[in-house]
Amino acid sequence: MTASPHNGRRQPADQVTMRRNNLALVLRHLRDAGPRSRARISVETGLNRGTVSSLVAELIDRGLVRDGDVQRGGSVGRPGQTVELDGRGIGGIGVEINVDYVTALVLDLADTVVFDQRVALDVPALPPAAVLDAVTDLTVRALAECSRHGITPVGLTLAIPALVDADAGVVAFAPNLHWTKVSVVAGLVGRLTARLGPPAFPVQVDNDANLAALGEYAMGGEAGTPDLVYLTGETGVGGGVMVDGRLLRGAEGFSGEIGHMPLNPGGNLCGCGRRGCWETMVGLAALLRLAATPDDPVCDPSLDLEQRLDTIRARARARDARTLDALHLVGTALGLGASILINVFNPRVLVLGGYFANLAEFLLDPMLGEMRGRVIAPDAGACQVVASTLGFAAASRGGAHVALEAVLDDPTIAAARHMA
Amino acid sequence: MTASPHNGRRQPADQVTMRRNNLALVLRHLRDAGPRSRARISVETGLNRGTVSSLVAELIDRGLVRDGDVQRGGSVGRPGQTVELDGRGIGGIGVEINVDYVTALVLDLADTVVFDQRVALDVPALPPAAVLDAVTDLTVRALAECSRHGITPVGLTLAIPALVDADAGVVAFAPNLHWTKVSVVAGLVGRLTARLGPPAFPVQVDNDANLAALGEYAMGGEAGTPDLVYLTGETGVGGGVMVDGRLLRGAEGFSGEIGHMPLNPGGNLCGCGRRGCWETMVGLAALLRLAATPDDPVCDPSLDLEQRLDTIRARARARDARTLDALHLVGTALGLGASILINVFNPRVLVLGGYFANLAEFLLDPMLGEMRGRVIAPDAGACQVVASTLGFAAASRGGAHVALEAVLDDPTIAAARHMA
Repeated sequence: MTASPHNGRRQPADQVTMRRNNLALVLRHLRDAGPRSRARISVETGLNRGTVSSLVAELIDRGLVRDGDVQRGGSVGRPGQTVELDGRGIGGIGVEINVDYVTALVLDLADTVVFDQRVALDVPALPPAAVLDAVTDLTVRALAECSRHGITPVGLTLAIPALVDADAGVVAFAPNLHWTKVSVVAGLVGRLTARLGPPAFPVQVDNDANLAALGEYAMGGEAGTPDLVYLTGETGVGGGVMVDGRLLRGAEGFSGEIGHMPLNPGGNLCGCGRRGCWETMVGLAALLRLAATPDDPVCDPSLDLEQRLDTIRARARARDARTLDALHLVGTALGLGASILINVFNPRVLVLGGYFANLAEFLLDPMLGEMRGRVIAPDAGACQVVASTLGFAAASRGGAHVALEAVLDDPTIAAARHMA
Repeated sequence: MTASPHNGRRQPADQVTMRRNNLALVLRHLRDAGPRSRARISVETGLNRGTVSSLVAELIDRGLVRDGDVQRGGSVGRPGQTVELDGRGIGGIGVEINVDYVTALVLDLADTVVFDQRVALDVPALPPAAVLDAVTDLTVRALAECSRHGITPVGLTLAIPALVDADAGVVAFAPNLHWTKVSVVAGLVGRLTARLGPPAFPVQVDNDANLAALGEYAMGGEAGTPDLVYLTGETGVGGGVMVDGRLLRGAEGFSGEIGHMPLNPGGNLCGCGRRGCWETMVGLAALLRLAATPDDPVCDPSLDLEQRLDTIRARARARDARTLDALHLVGTALGLGASILINVFNPRVLVLGGYFANLAEFLLDPMLGEMRGRVIAPDAGACQVVASTLGFAAASRGGAHVALEAVLDDPTIAAARHMA
């Protein structure tokens, strides 16, 4: 017997929960459906007029919603004052640690990027403590920018190319960073506390490809596509997969490890210690090895990655043979591995992230050629391949977005101003 | 403006829908939670006592529920008459067409198998019409058995190793059967109509691995595991994947095509026309090629498949070197491909179906050895590998189960008897 004989009686806690749920309902409705009158919100949500007025007043007090234009005419009801999402005072922070760089990004609730900085860093060559110091510097700068704009941060998500134990806040294993069991959340919170006092917002960590997939799903060029595969194109190659509008996480949160498909027996040594993994064929290191000599500036990890990629693109546009050959080989291998993912997931869209997006104009043709020969379903199962519009910021955008979701789930975490 | 200003008024159609939903709610609750009193159903579902009594009376009249024992004592309420799932009079039919055989199976609503016949058939050597004739014979036998037991069939699902257009009832492409664009649903319904008159139940078609995964999830040894990968071990190797308790279908229903991962460049020719696909390394044909000469009776598709596998198992137990070498090679290649799926999905359990289950005692050790070296997450991401307890019947069981789900969604499709 699991149900209580008293479960018909509402406890005060239930009223608090119901109020919170209704605040969230109205806030999400305004975000998804756009500005509208209280009357219309009432009709569309099924909440009565008085309740909607009270909920909107509280959302305005918490800085999440503001009065908008007066709506004229329309098919239903009298013209009235509209309300709309505000959220310029609420920020989510996304921080990324990758092989060649660290990034911090602040997104407000209206999806405006208010801060975005990337610093080139040779992460595998540094101890984790030094990397966390660099990330802390960047985060302190992001928080200062929040403060300058009157933005209250409501959460920080750290994106990292790793198997992550999200509950413990620990990187279990990051082959390309050479990290094993690093307590990144405690490390970052400790450093922030030493600099600024304990952060008033939650800090969490997640896999970079998962966060990038969530970022693409929320605000990328193919936003809202329920069956979507995202490929990170960095030193490592990871996958983030949306299945029917939900992130594939797996039983222990370790899904999407697609970089280590053994496609080339006897091939090059991988960061994971095995040979012939897909990422040894299509990761950034593979492209650089094929396209340039080690002393070529495009191989220098202390230089900005996008500038290095601009150089490669310029060489390809100038028809440099070595560069074109390298891109053809990488594109073909990209199609080989992608065909496995398309056969397995039958996604509507496959999004090329990271450096794949920068060089898509040269990678797509050989990739699609290989895919056409490999995917079992006719017409590649109707899968479109597109370059990410978010670029290297996809994971930090996704992280900031996830941090903001907390407010949409529970608007009461945004402090009330008790105005008027 | 999508909401209607009149959406507060209930139409009579809504009352019919609500009654049907409540019948379904009570029926599913009895199936999932077991026999219990009307009073307890009322407490647990939140429906009032009078409504529950009326719903139970209708479910009894439709032969889906029956009065059970008198419940004594217990912690809540007075002893009372229990009601329980009946459903012995309701049958779902699962029919499978595979490379070496066709099968028909009838499952009643209490998950009892009341009919299960498999016929060895060299399907790729026959025209589709001849195969549909054989399937029709088997289905007519299954229906006669239903009639003998007083079972009303409520649906038939055809399982087939193919890319399936389920809406159109068409096999789009079945490489190992050499079928392209075969209207299997119309073909079967037409033949049944000619023999028995038009069937009074819906007929549908789905991919065999998807149905087997649903069968395992519903009634296999690891039933209820939300993150589960099922491998068909037949001539073809397919995958059915449960993600968070839901079947992965993909954007066009073409997911799970795992047999054609290109793991052996320059390897053997596959049924799909490519070289080195995973199924050329681990499919039944690969095992037979490695373990026996073509004139060996274990290679004869006109003999019963389980008997052929019994022979191979007996040779392995007798330490026959060629048989053991073949099983070691196949097991290792099974681990190679499985590691990709485990890296991608991080499932809680991987179920070995078809012939993999029959020979699991010899395949598991080399498979797990290879997996341990290949899966990135520690301890293979906590994934267990198990042999299916449903064997070659998994897909037909899943098909029958899917057919029965129609009654659980809408109990009114079971005819009322209008008794007392």
